[in-house]
Amino acid sequence: MTPTRAACAALDAADPVAALRDEFTLPEGVLYLDGNSLGALPRHTAARIAAVVEQEWGQGLIRSWNDAGWYAMPRGLGNRIAPLIGAADGQVVVCDSTSVNLFKVLGAALRLRPGRRTVLAEHASFPTDLYITEGVTGLFDGARTVLLPTAADLDRHLGDDTAVVVLSHADYRTGELLDMAAVTERVHAAGALVVWDLCHTAGALPVELDRCAVDFAVGCGYKYLNGGPGAPAFLYVAERHQADARQPLSGWFGHTRPFAFEPGFEPAEGIGRFLTGTPPLLGLAALDASLDVWEKADLTALRATSLELTDLFLALVEPLGLESVTPREHARRGSHVSLRHPDGYAVMQALIARGVIGDFRAPDLMRFGFTPLYLRRTDVFDAAAHLAGVLASGEWQEERFARKGAVT
Amino acid sequence: MTPTRAACAALDAADPVAALRDEFTLPEGVLYLDGNSLGALPRHTAARIAAVVEQEWGQGLIRSWNDAGWYAMPRGLGNRIAPLIGAADGQVVVCDSTSVNLFKVLGAALRLRPGRRTVLAEHASFPTDLYITEGVTGLFDGARTVLLPTAADLDRHLGDDTAVVVLSHADYRTGELLDMAAVTERVHAAGALVVWDLCHTAGALPVELDRCAVDFAVGCGYKYLNGGPGAPAFLYVAERHQADARQPLSGWFGHTRPFAFEPGFEPAEGIGRFLTGTPPLLGLAALDASLDVWEKADLTALRATSLELTDLFLALVEPLGLESVTPREHARRGSHVSLRHPDGYAVMQALIARGVIGDFRAPDLMRFGFTPLYLRRTDVFDAAAHLAGVLASGEWQEERFARKGAVT
Repeated sequence: MTPTRAACAALDAADPVAALRDEFTLPEGVLYLDGNSLGALPRHTAARIAAVVEQEWGQGLIRSWNDAGWYAMPRGLGNRIAPLIGAADGQVVVCDSTSVNLFKVLGAALRLRPGRRTVLAEHASFPTDLYITEGVTGLFDGARTVLLPTAADLDRHLGDDTAVVVLSHADYRTGELLDMAAVTERVHAAGALVVWDLCHTAGALPVELDRCAVDFAVGCGYKYLNGGPGAPAFLYVAERHQADARQPLSGWFGHTRPFAFEPGFEPAEGIGRFLTGTPPLLGLAALDASLDVWEKADLTALRATSLELTDLFLALVEPLGLESVTPREHARRGSHVSLRHPDGYAVMQALIARGVIGDFRAPDLMRFGFTPLYLRRTDVFDAAAHLAGVLASGEWQEERFARKGAVT
Repeated sequence: MTPTRAACAALDAADPVAALRDEFTLPEGVLYLDGNSLGALPRHTAARIAAVVEQEWGQGLIRSWNDAGWYAMPRGLGNRIAPLIGAADGQVVVCDSTSVNLFKVLGAALRLRPGRRTVLAEHASFPTDLYITEGVTGLFDGARTVLLPTAADLDRHLGDDTAVVVLSHADYRTGELLDMAAVTERVHAAGALVVWDLCHTAGALPVELDRCAVDFAVGCGYKYLNGGPGAPAFLYVAERHQADARQPLSGWFGHTRPFAFEPGFEPAEGIGRFLTGTPPLLGLAALDASLDVWEKADLTALRATSLELTDLFLALVEPLGLESVTPREHARRGSHVSLRHPDGYAVMQALIARGVIGDFRAPDLMRFGFTPLYLRRTDVFDAAAHLAGVLASGEWQEERFARKGAVT
């Protein structure tokens, strides 16, 4: 039997995680189930950005690189993200986009395995991971990308020529979570290195990079970390690889003495060598503000609430008869749920018109993200009721919801 | 005879360019001669950023990618910058950092000259250009970087193996301006391609990329364009090269159908293929706001005022007996002046303590940037008077101005 709305409200009232909702600004009349695409706005971010623009930039001008600590931000923010992904200090920096960061760590990883030339990646990866992998292997003599039909095919393909394996911790469509510890161990047993894409897990659930002996990771600042649209991304390089790692995007912020203006490149000690150009200060400031919220959040408690939310949604929509492609087992589930519907695009548009915002992933998946920082059980209850209403009424068949041309 | 302050004020009052100063917020008591490092804050930028944060992100959330035009911004801002650098529409995009963009265009350029393996770059380039060139040539089989002692040595080094030449339009230290048309023609005569770095000219003087038949260019958003600290950069690819150009940072925003989520990379038509990851919206919005000011500015008039300002400064400081490394000829001068002093670091610190902000470039250059959008002749007069005062008093010898460790 599924719970009543009143029961959901009672559970929310008893859950300390639910109080974190007050840290966010959300529009009236909207149930936001797309925080896995773009996280919501923390309440104090606007004031922080205004201070950076008006005071640090407008009044401090060039002096703020030192006086306001701008130089230190890529490393400083990295150390703020580190505890969320199970990394000790000095292994994470915030910079560039996820795509650019993947290029950097993949280039460095290939160079750490000079005799090997194959990069394995999963066919179902978020496509930019595949495009970037293609871009990197296209530059390394003899290197090639091999696509695994599914992550389960990894063992069949791991071999003496495997240099690097690129995998997503949680699948962006299905929400399926891989066993990071076990997979990393198998990759290492084959003598290869692993790069984990944390876009759909960093800030959604506890990640344990150090404990799993991960080599490299990349992730996104604008999804569960709520750093704002196009927020700078992060990358992780295990301390044991840093001294030997050479990444190809050797820009001046990765130099050991950037302000000596020397003609030859000499990489910085440690993780700093993975920086490239001048850091994007407004984006860094927004991400920094959003990380304040994480100081108040306990990831283990958040994970428990997230699983309750996705359990609840799956239970509430079960009577609708839609196929869920999201695993039932907690250990294999991230923080979103995807339901199949042949007219998923139109159904999602009809939901959005009702103020229930999820997204659509071709060809037929309706994706609902459950961000425990600002979603409550009553929101899940109401969203499921709207989905039932849209399907029962057939309103999604209205002309205005039909798909026209490409989805953007 | 040098003019009096009253004469400067009269000239300012008669110059329509001087009125643009009102578009900017500048701190009280500061003479800001470092707009060539970080441009000043346009008066309306803060409100624009606040609207993007509070309305577009906070209220619009994921919908703003379409509803607020976020997707179109990298190309749209490119088309706004295009007239400032003499480019027709569809050849400029705004994205990433200058360093990352240089990597992209250099990679594409090398591939357009497959039989050639040498990249020529000038020893005195801003170092990130050299570091990135090193990074790119390190990835292409047999490719190598050759450093020109000076740009004047170009002809001696141009040859059958020259694939690409990377040059700065204006030297970041001396302010020396190269003849873009003549140099480009010589590079083309040798069968090579040219990449121009416009960091110190875009927004400082009229640039004519199309007329000079330039192949590629990169430039910075945070100097003369006033896009804010770490603003996204831009890149230019001549229309004739776009269809064949393949850049190595092939991310999802450069795909022809990014939202089809296809596993194979297919580059977008035109300049869009030079995009990589998700665009940094806050940075783009700040740059977009700053470009509004350029709608009111006439670059030819600005250039005339800029030359008057640097002429005036050179005349005013001449009695001080410091060597200027900046060319006297207008055709060879950018928009800044650099003066040599063996204790330039300390002298600049003493100037900054008086509120005259320039910067120092090792080993001995004091650099003064003259941004006609917000500097007037009276500012130049006052800055020169402070420099005379600092030198006459010897106050720069105070302990508090001494150089300690590395300059940052």
